[in-house]
Amino acid sequence: MGYEDNVRKVVPYTPGEQPGGRVIKLNTNECPYPPSPRVQEAIRSLDTDALRKYPDPLCSELVSEIAGYYGLKDENVFTGVGSDDVLSMCFLTFFNGRDPVLFPNITYSFYDVWASVYGIPFRRVPLREDFSLDPSLYRQKNGGIVIANPNAPTGIAADLKVIEDIVSSNPGVMVIVDEAYIDFGGETALPLLDAHENLLIVRTLSKSRALAGMRIGYAFGQEKAIKYLNDVKFSVNSYTMNTPSLLAGKAAIEDDRYFREIRDKVISTREWVKKELRELKFSFGDSCTNFIFASHEGTHPGETEAGFAKRIFASLKERGIYVRYFDKPLIDGYLRISIGTDEEMREFMRVLKEIM
Amino acid sequence: MGYEDNVRKVVPYTPGEQPGGRVIKLNTNECPYPPSPRVQEAIRSLDTDALRKYPDPLCSELVSEIAGYYGLKDENVFTGVGSDDVLSMCFLTFFNGRDPVLFPNITYSFYDVWASVYGIPFRRVPLREDFSLDPSLYRQKNGGIVIANPNAPTGIAADLKVIEDIVSSNPGVMVIVDEAYIDFGGETALPLLDAHENLLIVRTLSKSRALAGMRIGYAFGQEKAIKYLNDVKFSVNSYTMNTPSLLAGKAAIEDDRYFREIRDKVISTREWVKKELRELKFSFGDSCTNFIFASHEGTHPGETEAGFAKRIFASLKERGIYVRYFDKPLIDGYLRISIGTDEEMREFMRVLKEIM
Repeated sequence: MGYEDNVRKVVPYTPGEQPGGRVIKLNTNECPYPPSPRVQEAIRSLDTDALRKYPDPLCSELVSEIAGYYGLKDENVFTGVGSDDVLSMCFLTFFNGRDPVLFPNITYSFYDVWASVYGIPFRRVPLREDFSLDPSLYRQKNGGIVIANPNAPTGIAADLKVIEDIVSSNPGVMVIVDEAYIDFGGETALPLLDAHENLLIVRTLSKSRALAGMRIGYAFGQEKAIKYLNDVKFSVNSYTMNTPSLLAGKAAIEDDRYFREIRDKVISTREWVKKELRELKFSFGDSCTNFIFASHEGTHPGETEAGFAKRIFASLKERGIYVRYFDKPLIDGYLRISIGTDEEMREFMRVLKEIM
Repeated sequence: MGYEDNVRKVVPYTPGEQPGGRVIKLNTNECPYPPSPRVQEAIRSLDTDALRKYPDPLCSELVSEIAGYYGLKDENVFTGVGSDDVLSMCFLTFFNGRDPVLFPNITYSFYDVWASVYGIPFRRVPLREDFSLDPSLYRQKNGGIVIANPNAPTGIAADLKVIEDIVSSNPGVMVIVDEAYIDFGGETALPLLDAHENLLIVRTLSKSRALAGMRIGYAFGQEKAIKYLNDVKFSVNSYTMNTPSLLAGKAAIEDDRYFREIRDKVISTREWVKKELRELKFSFGDSCTNFIFASHEGTHPGETEAGFAKRIFASLKERGIYVRYFDKPLIDGYLRISIGTDEEMREFMRVLKEIM
């Protein structure tokens, strides 16, 4: 017998590639614009001598900044190393029952990975054919629910009423609404927070605030839920967020004008790209995110949607343009195209037309 | 029924206080000297525009730097958000069996917290009365072993032979040697790595490289063990270390001369403080760390060691000097005093004498 008998064997999540060199990177939903100039100031003026000391384990200043921005109390805010860390802690904290946790059959592919690594039973609930959410399917017995809204990789948003239906018909379990992309469209579940102790909303600074490299995520919940989450966090790693993160996160939230400016640019580029893709006969739902999830009929004799998507993905990559392709049932006919700068998207469209 | 039925309820680890203002902070084993000037350069020259992109999930440059420094291959190195993150991942990865994980009854108090949060059975193995490790007690059936060497909070180191005995008599389980303080004394288990696939060594840049604020830890193991660890990491959070961490960690390892200089200063201050404390009739083992774990007989009528320690802890705190006191069985008669600068330790000794 070797030590391997006791090893937790898992199939990890596969992040999008991070190629070096001069490529057009439309594969990981990063922001095409740099973070606020205040982030640069915060990093440049960091007292590096103070790095000898542990960071504030409570992340108090960042928490207060976020709470203030959203009109919440500090006790309603939790922070972590990207929304992945926050979601991972949520799974560990709130999904400790025996009934399966529910999430859509097409959604962020990390949910089943977290369920697996922590030994949480789960069940995938079908989306409608148009990728929309059917709340009536969330009335079955369950140990918790996770909904990405807007959903990834589909880009589709659910109405607040749909979210409210799911939250209020499941008072006995925690409902986590992953709003990683909410700044680009859709309705936030924040107005539901006061009335629902079983609601947690997860956010990130990686996308709309252009800080993927800093790893900052956060969650909103009622005070008791945030306390449970903090208890688990302090049972895993007391000091998850380092000093530069705490400062950069605060600086990014402070600069609301800059945030609105780059968010609006991404949205207007997205709408322009939608039009272009429609002209090329791509099909996609109404993307509310910083990416578009699009399919296209085969253009060669006998070519399927999946064949087309796979071929275009490879051809784009050969030409230094990275989009995301998921070779998985239900979504293997789609390309997920992150929204870059106007210039990048013009080049993307040019190359796409050339390939097609 | 509320959502709380499914909550993982835990008793979290309590980190040492992080008081603000002008205090002498000897309570969290931080380095009293700033990190290498190269860390400052790395942070100052960071391309903040690039923070819009995710960091390298494989931490390749940092991993290579660490591997090169220790004469290992990249495949032998894992990195994480402080050694707490690395240890937490190790618990999750390697302690997935049914038999109890073993660790000393006096050791880093996070071990039982990780075991609890992940539902891992564990058993505390008594140290000898002088706080030394008895390897013969680690021949019982177990699901894994964790040994801090040098141990915390005792500061005592075990001979390499003792560690080797434990590793080689437990081929069926993973033995984790937590070497957070090894740079200050004791023998590393690194020479055992080639011959033992069931050995993992965990290190940190928080102490001897003065980077507690950056959260950088790492582990050495055989290629297969590191792969298992990475699979679990990629099932929890793909991008644990942010861009500034990756750069600062590399810069700190590169500056070996500076590292040796501050480490030697801490060691020589420690030896001087030992002499002073001995003169005041404190008792302590041979500390091989950047702290001293010391007890003293009561000095008032009927005062116990615990009474003395508690009283001195409180009096020091009143005077703005923070040391660590653990109000726990077996160690409630001790103060853990981190080694500060010579100036801080002179002030500490002056105030201590005054109180006594």
